[in-house]
Amino acid sequence: MKLQVAIDLLSTADALTLLNKVAQHVDVIELGTPLIKQQGLSVVTNVKAAHPGKLVFADMKTMDTGELEADLAFKAGADIMTVLASAADSTIAGAVKAGKMHGKAVVADMIGVSDKAARLRELKGLGVTWVELHGGLDEQAQARYSFENLLEVGRSAGMPFSVAGGINIDRIAGVESAGATIAVAGAAIYGAKDPGAAAKALREKIKQLG
Amino acid sequence: MKLQVAIDLLSTADALTLLNKVAQHVDVIELGTPLIKQQGLSVVTNVKAAHPGKLVFADMKTMDTGELEADLAFKAGADIMTVLASAADSTIAGAVKAGKMHGKAVVADMIGVSDKAARLRELKGLGVTWVELHGGLDEQAQARYSFENLLEVGRSAGMPFSVAGGINIDRIAGVESAGATIAVAGAAIYGAKDPGAAAKALREKIKQLG
Repeated sequence: MKLQVAIDLLSTADALTLLNKVAQHVDVIELGTPLIKQQGLSVVTNVKAAHPGKLVFADMKTMDTGELEADLAFKAGADIMTVLASAADSTIAGAVKAGKMHGKAVVADMIGVSDKAARLRELKGLGVTWVELHGGLDEQAQARYSFENLLEVGRSAGMPFSVAGGINIDRIAGVESAGATIAVAGAAIYGAKDPGAAAKALREKIKQLG
Repeated sequence: MKLQVAIDLLSTADALTLLNKVAQHVDVIELGTPLIKQQGLSVVTNVKAAHPGKLVFADMKTMDTGELEADLAFKAGADIMTVLASAADSTIAGAVKAGKMHGKAVVADMIGVSDKAARLRELKGLGVTWVELHGGLDEQAQARYSFENLLEVGRSAGMPFSVAGGINIDRIAGVESAGATIAVAGAAIYGAKDPGAAAKALREKIKQLG
């Protein structure tokens, strides 16, 4: 299982400072949607230039103009971009088309999809590289939020998936045993007192599991 | 009925050049999602500085972190921002909270919502300023796309709404008679040979209708 750090900061400088501490411990660097909207796609270009050996994940959360937005993300240097699973099939197909042209990955973000099993069946035919089972930050703040439900969907997904939505050192073993190919940690790393130590601890825990 | 121009260009310079020709004929200037992702929110700040007398609409299409993304858009100078109607209720409520704090408008973009009548009933309780009945660019490219369906939803919306999704000089009368408070024109203006003349013609047609 790979480790992805989601960076929900708001400036390129802060993202680069954080990455100086944590990049060595992760496989995938995710630049969050608010960061991209605030800074523009130049943040992707700058992070990829600073960490060319890492996979850079642009969390575009594309809802329309799939081919165009994927093309912009890949041209900026992203290795992976996200399209919303709740977008029209034609939007997802457009993003996948751009992904094939660039030889890069397109991930369908399942945030906000209510009937996840039904949408997963449809997504298999649309050619996305994997799906992200994702409890959003707003969703996590709700009392009824269930991390376990994400893992439940993953166990029967029948296609490669990542998990995001409150992963920390206590939850990482469950994510691995559910069969995820990537675990996404955000606040557990960027919000830690010592982000480098937090990323390293997650990485070592994953190694023990493997 | 107000006229909104949606700018789906990719550079701040191109947006400003277009606006020199069309701003005088419109009430609301919309900066499209791909433009914001490409340039960052500085495009909102630059356009508002160039056209302080116009309402600037940041098409954020927010799916998570509603309060944060709305706050970023308003701080950048937007008068109006969009949250996806398909986002979690807590995301929409967060955006509305930021809107109230700034005294600005939050619009729920209905793109991709399948049961529009049911979602409209829920949106009324969430405090959005209006809803945008929106056929996306990818959706418009599909053979089964129906502009008339958007107007049908509008007629029974029971709350203020705008319409976007292929509005041109031939469709504008239908939009007005359906009861829309704002008509959004994109390609009919920015894709026209003479964008200034196209915007002016739409404005004059609306005046005749009124």
